Parts: sequence; structure tokens; C-alpha cells
Amino acid sequence: MVPLEEIKEISIVSASKIVMLVIDGLGGLPDAKAGRTELETARTPNLNQLAKKSICGLIDPVSPGITPGSGPGHLALFGYDPLKYSIGRGVLEALGIGFELTKNDVAARGNFCIIDDNGLITDRRAGRITTEKCAELCKLLGNIKLEGVELFVWPVKEHRFMITLRGKDLAADISDTDPQRLGVAPNVAIAVEPQAKQTAHLVNIFINEASKILTGRHPANMILLRGFSKLPNIPTMAEIYKLTPAAIAVYPMYKGLAKLVGMKVFSVDGGIQEELRVLASCFDKHDFFYVHVKHADSAGEDGDFSKKVRIIEEVDSALPQLLNLKPDVIVVTGDHSTPAVLKGHSWHPVPVLLYSQYCRSDNAREFSESACATGGLGRLYSTDIMPLAMANALKLTKFGA
Amino acid sequence: MVPLEEIKEISIVSASKIVMLVIDGLGGLPDAKAGRTELETARTPNLNQLAKKSICGLIDPVSPGITPGSGPGHLALFGYDPLKYSIGRGVLEALGIGFELTKNDVAARGNFCIIDDNGLITDRRAGRITTEKCAELCKLLGNIKLEGVELFVWPVKEHRFMITLRGKDLAADISDTDPQRLGVAPNVAIAVEPQAKQTAHLVNIFINEASKILTGRHPANMILLRGFSKLPNIPTMAEIYKLTPAAIAVYPMYKGLAKLVGMKVFSVDGGIQEELRVLASCFDKHDFFYVHVKHADSAGEDGDFSKKVRIIEEVDSALPQLLNLKPDVIVVTGDHSTPAVLKGHSWHPVPVLLYSQYCRSDNAREFSESACATGGLGRLYSTDIMPLAMANALKLTKFGA
Repeated sequence: MVPLEEIKEISIVSASKIVMLVIDGLGGLPDAKAGRTELETARTPNLNQLAKKSICGLIDPVSPGITPGSGPGHLALFGYDPLKYSIGRGVLEALGIGFELTKNDVAARGNFCIIDDNGLITDRRAGRITTEKCAELCKLLGNIKLEGVELFVWPVKEHRFMITLRGKDLAADISDTDPQRLGVAPNVAIAVEPQAKQTAHLVNIFINEASKILTGRHPANMILLRGFSKLPNIPTMAEIYKLTPAAIAVYPMYKGLAKLVGMKVFSVDGGIQEELRVLASCFDKHDFFYVHVKHADSAGEDGDFSKKVRIIEEVDSALPQLLNLKPDVIVVTGDHSTPAVLKGHSWHPVPVLLYSQYCRSDNAREFSESACATGGLGRLYSTDIMPLAMANALKLTKFGA
Repeated sequence: MVPLEEIKEISIVSASKIVMLVIDGLGGLPDAKAGRTELETARTPNLNQLAKKSICGLIDPVSPGITPGSGPGHLALFGYDPLKYSIGRGVLEALGIGFELTKNDVAARGNFCIIDDNGLITDRRAGRITTEKCAELCKLLGNIKLEGVELFVWPVKEHRFMITLRGKDLAADISDTDPQRLGVAPNVAIAVEPQAKQTAHLVNIFINEASKILTGRHPANMILLRGFSKLPNIPTMAEIYKLTPAAIAVYPMYKGLAKLVGMKVFSVDGGIQEELRVLASCFDKHDFFYVHVKHADSAGEDGDFSKKVRIIEEVDSALPQLLNLKPDVIVVTGDHSTPAVLKGHSWHPVPVLLYSQYCRSDNAREFSESACATGGLGRLYSTDIMPLAMANALKLTKFGA
């Protein structure tokens, strides 16, 4: 890929508009009976019609064979090398619950766990306590006082929570206290770089205090922390592409990821139709639009093939709302594959369709994994999509003399 | 490609098994008459049947247009960037004759050559003396005494031999004494890094002594050395992939390459059927198997189109032996192309077939260069194959949060 500094040199402002529709976990695998993937099973006349006028292909979010998390999957679509720009687990957890991180924050992912009388871990998930119980315990831990820093302890789900320390000169170079196995004691937090010494010290005080509060509160009588991280130092899409980007998403994590790269975030409470209504309402004010459809991924994670099919069909039905706005460039793709048969993210490359007046359309007659496999784009990296979208929007000038 | 350190972070141990069948020099070019490559000419019902259930593509061992040697071709298949991990010519020569290199060894490739009365080279290959003659001369040179080091001089073939110095603190940063042209004197060995000074000194003593011994023994009255090298510092497949890998091969060089990356090597004396019998016998004890078929390459090098066809047909006939073991992932490919019409290695990308339950099979109806060119894998690098095989064996967890 071309380094972002080079893209910055050749990007220009223009009136043209790009819409990137991300159907989370779009790529799939054939079901045992019919031998067709979720996308191939779905009735998608509008997407197929668009595919005929588009250029299609398959994209690898990170690299062939690599199953991406949501962070790398999205960063790659926005044009950021996911091997270079990584988002820590703590930061992702914070983004996921809509916690507004600042540059002075160190965030970590927490687990409530069970330790025995000898202090050894017997259950890393405290028997998956309820989210309610988790919230109650987080409130208690949130009252702990740490000198010179603000402390936030927010529940996530079941035994999972997020902790954030906010203060001057905090650093995230701290080892996990979660040993990720049973029969051993939780680790002490250790500064792996000198500048994190004070932060590690505060973290250990917090853990000690938490331990005192939780003693006797079986099954959640201890905590484990991992993924200490700060907001990554990442150039914005405005800086690189000279875009005024907008994000339309329902779930906090995706809104958080969009905010990370400098998008203006429009919160939506509803399905794709509602999202596209918001798109229409802000269409004049921006030139790049990231629209996120979550439930295809959730259905895939649940192993619910037909629900994933239905979500894709809903997107297809709503597509004319998007087409009516006549964007200059339309990209439809996913951040990764989530085949229902695997019940989780997978390494399979993701179908992508790119429409513009100048796209040099191919022979793909439908939007599907198999049609995209022989499409004109071939097999690319997800990071290639933003430069292609920018080029098709005539927003990139010549590289080199 | 994803750095091996990252792969190491996400690889896990599981019971699934991967078989990588490498048909050396597999890729070809059409013959003038029928217009079909060796693979397309061969009758391969079993490979075609497997291709229907697999995902196919073409792979570049190093980069498009680059003709790889056996070292880079194989390293890439095992997932090692051949531009980063290079194997010196001396080391490759040692591997090729089954010489067991240690970390204390510096190896070089040698040529017997002819010099005239003025000491100028008139034939870099000493008129291609017989291998017998070469062995006789190597024995003489092997008697030379060098202070503080052990010396090994082994014949390779015709005028070619291998020299290895074994001792403490030896270094391989030494320039070639072979000027690779006629009418000039052999070069003196020069240390290009300070730590190689003593080794270069010993090499020059060896050359002087060798010269004395060979004087008057026309046509082999002098030697030329090149490719001074040590075993590369390369992480093992156990470290990176957490595999317990096994290699099944007939020829020393391939056994040596496998040993380099930490495979347990099973020597075989026989054809593909015998190799697959060995595979069956060790199938329980390992989870990754590299099976090497040499003679397709040899036939290609000899320009023997129909012999290469026959070798491929032999592999096809034996394939059911492999399929009966029911490996979770099967990869069939080559380390490079060796078209009979070119009588040598070539730059053409190599057909690859990857079978697993989760491979997302494509429309390839046969295993051939032309079918692979439109296969679902598209065109990848050889280094992508190991991550894909690992992913399909469900041995890679998610990258990034």
C-alpha cells in the first residue's frame, strides 16, 4: 500500500461524494444443503443491479488467512494499515460502551474472577455473573480513590468491565494481570517501560483496594486486567484524504472507531432504513459517509444463517434510498467475514463492490462471493479500497512527475 | 505479509492435521503442438476431483517475474519471507549433499578450474571433470591442515564441491574468490566485516595450499570459492506455528531445508507411493507434513515434457493413499515452475489447491494452470499459503481486538 503521507500529498478537495456501506461480517461460507453462502442465498435484486454497473472483487482485511477483529477490519477499510495502527483491547472496550476516551486516559479490559483461599484463580469469568451484578460491583470499585487521577469503572457485559485512569503523564506500557490460565495467582501489574512506572503503581493500588472490597463476595471475589492502552496516535481522514467524513452507526464500538479517525458521528437508533434517512439528512454537509450495518455479523456469530440472509435482504430493500442520493462513488463491503457455519469472524476474503461512473465495470452479474472471486478488482487488501474510492471520486491527483 | 512474530501471537495447538504436497517445479508452459502445459496434459482424475472441492489459485514464490531457487521457493511455502531469510550458496550446497552443518560452520561452494601459466583463469569449470575425479581431488584437499579449525571438502558433482570450516568465532562475511569471468586471476578472499578477518585468513591459506597440491594436475589446477555462508538464524515452525512438523523427502537438499525450519525429517528411498506410506506411518505423531516430489522438476530441467507429465500422473495415482488419511487441510502446489520448454526454473506463478471443510471452494473443475488462474484464491504470494493452511485448520485465532 502507498503510505498515508503520500496519499496526503495527492488528495484534493472536490464536490464528489463517497458512500461506504459496511455490512459487518458480510462474507460467509456455503450452507451444507444448498451450497450457497448467506449473500448468495439472499434475494438481492438491487445489489445485483448495482453489481452489474460496478467493479467487484474480494478483499483481505489484514492478510490472507488472518481473521481480523473489528478494529483492524475497520481501520483497513478506512485505509489505515492494521499492522501499523493497532487499537488496544482496553481502548476497544471503552469504545464499545461509548466511553469518551481522552488523550490523558489509560484504559484496560477487566474480568471479575474467582480466587480460592490460597489466592489462586479457579474461574477467570466468575461464573459469568449477570451484567446487573457486574454494574453493581463496578459502582463499588469506582469509589476507590487514587491520588492524582480520575478513575472510571464501567460495566460491559456479564463478568466484563472497563477501567480507565485519567490523569497527567499516565502511560499504558503495563503488563496484563490476567495470566489467562487457572491455578495461578493474578499477576502484579508491571511497567514494561520506565514511563509507565507510576501508572503501574496506581493500578496495583487499585487492584489491592478492589480485592479488599470484593473479598467474601464470591463468585466475584477478585479482578483481572489486561490490554492497557491509550488512544492510538492516528492521523485523521481529514488530514490524509482532505475529506469531511461522517459516520452513521448504531453501536458504540463503530461510532468510537469512526471518531478515532476523525469522523463526525451521527447516532442512529434503528435499522438500515433509519440509517439511510440520517444519511439523506446530512448528505449535503459531508463528502464521505461510512454507514455501518451491525446485525449481519451478530447473526453470523450466533450461527443463524437465515437471519444473516434476512439482514442482507433488508439492506438490499433499502438500497434505493441510498441510490436516490446519487453518490459519485458507492462501496458496499464488510469489515471481515462471519460465516454462520463458523459462528465467528473468519479469515475468508470479503466481497466488495465499487460503483462509479469511471469504475471500469466487469462481468460480475450479481453481488456474491463467487461472482466477486472473478471480478475485475481481483483480490486486494482492504486498505486498497479507500485509495480506489478516492480515485473514482476524482479526489486523487497524479503520483510522481 | 503478516510478520512471523504476529503469527506466533495468534497460532494455537489443535488436533487438526495439514498435509502440504510439494511437486517440485510443478508449473509449466504449453507445448508447441497441443498448447497444454505438463499439468494440463497429464491425466489427473484424482487431483481434478480434489480441485472441485478445493479453492485454487496461483502463487508467486518471491514476486511476479522473479525465478526462485529451491531455497526461496521452499522457505516461502513454509511461510518465511524469502527476501528476509536468505540461504547462502555454501549452505545450500552443504544441504544438497546431506552435509550436517552446525552453527559453528562456514560453508562455501567450490569450483575446480583451469589457470594458465600466468595464473589467469581459462576455464571456470575445469572442462567439467568427472564427479569421480572431483571426489579424488577433494580427498587431497581435505588433508590440508588449518590451525584451530576442522576442514571438510566434499564433492558435489563434476567440477563442483563444498568446503566447510568448523570452529569457534568463524564468520562468513567474506568476498568470493570466483571472479565469474575468464582472463583474470582468482580473487583473494577478503573479510567484508572485521569479525571475518581470521576466517578470510584461513580461507586464503587453504587456497594457497590447494593451489600447491593442484599445480600440474591440469585440467583441475586451481579452485574458486563463492557463497561463504553460515546457517541462517531462522525461527522454527514449532516456534511460529506451534506445529510438530514432519518432512518426507528423498533428496538431501529438501531434507536439509526442512531441518532448517525445525521439521523432523523422514528419509525415504523410493517414489511417491513409498513417501505416502511413510506419511501414513507417522501420521499420528505430527500435525504438519511436508511431502516433497522431486522428479517433476528434474524432468522439467531436462526438457523432458512427457516425463514430467508421467511424474504428475504418478502423483495423481497415489493421491488416494493421502486422501484416505483424511487430513483436515491439504495443499498441493510446487516450490516454483520448471517448464520443460525452458529447461529450468522459471518465474511463472505456481498452481495451488487448498482443500478443507471451510475453504469456500470455487469453480475450478480441474487442477491446472488455466483453472487456477480464475480460482477463488486469486493470485497470492507463496508466503500466504501457510497462514491460509493454518486458518483452514482452525489453528489461528483472531488478530487484534
